[in-house]
Amino acid sequence: MLGILGGGQLARMLAIAAAPLGVRTLVVDSAADACAGQVASLRLADWTDFAALEKFAAEVDVVTFDFENVPADTAHWLAEHVAVFPNPRALAVAQDRLAEKTLFRECGLQTPAFEAVDTREDLERALAKIGAPSILKTRRLGYDGKGQFRIKQLSDADAAWETLGANAHGLILEAFVPFERELSVLAVRTRHGDFRVWPLTQNWHTDGVLSMSLAPAPEVGGLQARAAALARTLADHLDYVGVFALELFVKDGELLGNEMAPRVHNSGHWTIEGAIASQFENHVRAVLGLPLGDTSARGCSAMFNWIGELPDATPVLNGVDSHWHDYGKQPRPGRKVGHATVCAQDTKTLAARVDEIARALQREEQAAPALKVL
Amino acid sequence: MLGILGGGQLARMLAIAAAPLGVRTLVVDSAADACAGQVASLRLADWTDFAALEKFAAEVDVVTFDFENVPADTAHWLAEHVAVFPNPRALAVAQDRLAEKTLFRECGLQTPAFEAVDTREDLERALAKIGAPSILKTRRLGYDGKGQFRIKQLSDADAAWETLGANAHGLILEAFVPFERELSVLAVRTRHGDFRVWPLTQNWHTDGVLSMSLAPAPEVGGLQARAAALARTLADHLDYVGVFALELFVKDGELLGNEMAPRVHNSGHWTIEGAIASQFENHVRAVLGLPLGDTSARGCSAMFNWIGELPDATPVLNGVDSHWHDYGKQPRPGRKVGHATVCAQDTKTLAARVDEIARALQREEQAAPALKVL
Repeated sequence: MLGILGGGQLARMLAIAAAPLGVRTLVVDSAADACAGQVASLRLADWTDFAALEKFAAEVDVVTFDFENVPADTAHWLAEHVAVFPNPRALAVAQDRLAEKTLFRECGLQTPAFEAVDTREDLERALAKIGAPSILKTRRLGYDGKGQFRIKQLSDADAAWETLGANAHGLILEAFVPFERELSVLAVRTRHGDFRVWPLTQNWHTDGVLSMSLAPAPEVGGLQARAAALARTLADHLDYVGVFALELFVKDGELLGNEMAPRVHNSGHWTIEGAIASQFENHVRAVLGLPLGDTSARGCSAMFNWIGELPDATPVLNGVDSHWHDYGKQPRPGRKVGHATVCAQDTKTLAARVDEIARALQREEQAAPALKVL
Repeated sequence: MLGILGGGQLARMLAIAAAPLGVRTLVVDSAADACAGQVASLRLADWTDFAALEKFAAEVDVVTFDFENVPADTAHWLAEHVAVFPNPRALAVAQDRLAEKTLFRECGLQTPAFEAVDTREDLERALAKIGAPSILKTRRLGYDGKGQFRIKQLSDADAAWETLGANAHGLILEAFVPFERELSVLAVRTRHGDFRVWPLTQNWHTDGVLSMSLAPAPEVGGLQARAAALARTLADHLDYVGVFALELFVKDGELLGNEMAPRVHNSGHWTIEGAIASQFENHVRAVLGLPLGDTSARGCSAMFNWIGELPDATPVLNGVDSHWHDYGKQPRPGRKVGHATVCAQDTKTLAARVDEIARALQREEQAAPALKVL
């Protein structure tokens, strides 16, 4: 039995990938309508309900996460009762932007300039070093653009401090990088240190939330090998087990580390149909101690993310080699409710299929940046 | 909500295919450990528990089957309460070998010679016409070689009658055809009459149970178009909605109709990884009134059926583009407990991968017939 803390769409897709392998899934979430509960057993409990967690730990062979912001106490407590992958230390590093970026640099991955900010004076000092434009972020609990304040000019400092200064976990000021591209590398490592990466993915965000992905990212040249080597160094350093995503910027042709997500990742959803083994299948395999599946791409893929509400499914269902994913969630502004993956054997055909679906759904704006590079 | 009568591996794989589409599944079975219950909601009830069926019918949008031998009364009763696909008439025809073969001939599909047998005298008359070798079969409730007696010479008639003569549903005597190949065509038809077939599959049986499948079946020439046309004629005639399999013999280069399975079929399991849309996804789409997915093959595939117990998963998990399926069932002699699908872009590579896995599992005998034609 695979145990998952968190019952969102990532847990849902993990459970769907686990099922063919004969692996049953038990999900813990505090929401009775957690969408993974539609395809797996759901245990209603809070992260800090240790009585419930004890029962959960006794029932499962291994615990993993669909959400990186599991409290460190919970992860550590669980790790004393059952096998937990990724390990709590890896989780802790990825939860903290300061620790994460410090590790990136230790592992040879450059990052935008950053400074820790705990006080208003720290912010002043950091701005003197980094300047504007820059971004003030909470060190912990930020995702999808949440917990961030963009400092366009130095006079924005007061407003930034007013918005985020009260955060108990501390802040980090990061230089704003006018990057050329956003890439991510999805990687997986087993308990024995076997390691594989999928082809680099190119990503586009809208309001801080992933909007489109394209894989394999076109014309990456040596960046694929470089990203794979960096991901491996990081994973080995953390004794990481399972899938993770490393979000990267490309600036002047070089990789800069933005963020590490210690879990399956939205930018890897294309692997369900677009790779021989998906990120979900390989995460299940890795945490259960099974050998890894092949991370090669089948042709090329583009993913539309559906935010807030689902569009009409028909153009995707009618499309050639295009695949509809509805997470079974209620619509709500900003909520990830589904995605669609379009696959083809070559980029020209892919572009034509993406264009056709985008037009049918009046999503030309969403598809435009990806179409520009296809 | 999709309702399925029967909670075996076919319902399980239907539920797994339904989940990404945002479709929830409710399965009815009389066994508490029905393996589909691991991935879908399970309602414990007997086929004839009409109180339970009434509640079930009220909860689901559409009902389908994972088992063709649902009592006709149950199917008819359900069809008066909820949308049922395939319709009870199609189910009834496919349940009865005599009605089925009669329909095949009406639709232009030749069959082995056959005669209805209700009495010992009928058997004598039928044997006089058809001769030996021939096969005496129950008209109803036979599958995987069950309910059959092979008459090797005319003097076997008494033993055959002793074994099967008491069957209340009547018998059929069929000529034994020394066929060259066994093929199946998987087909799907929507409520609006849209119709698609997957590439022909070649099959090998051991003791009446499917052992290996290969798709697309090699060197079929004009048989693909012929099989597709026949399947369409049958489906239109029955106003069939959903996936079905037509099992065929090839004799002297011509197709003979053996059996129609009014459901997703073991010989179509390769479509999960080996086709753009699987038989399971398209069955879900068809019965829910959604457009059909693409039935094209991705390269070529071979499927090993695991009967009785699972072999070691490692060679399959370690193989390139090979996929493990464990149905979550307890081992039992003769029981279908899982399968593995091996995919490749060309038949030479496929042969090498199948051979490697067969050797690792000491399943050379199982793979040999497929390797002979690859």
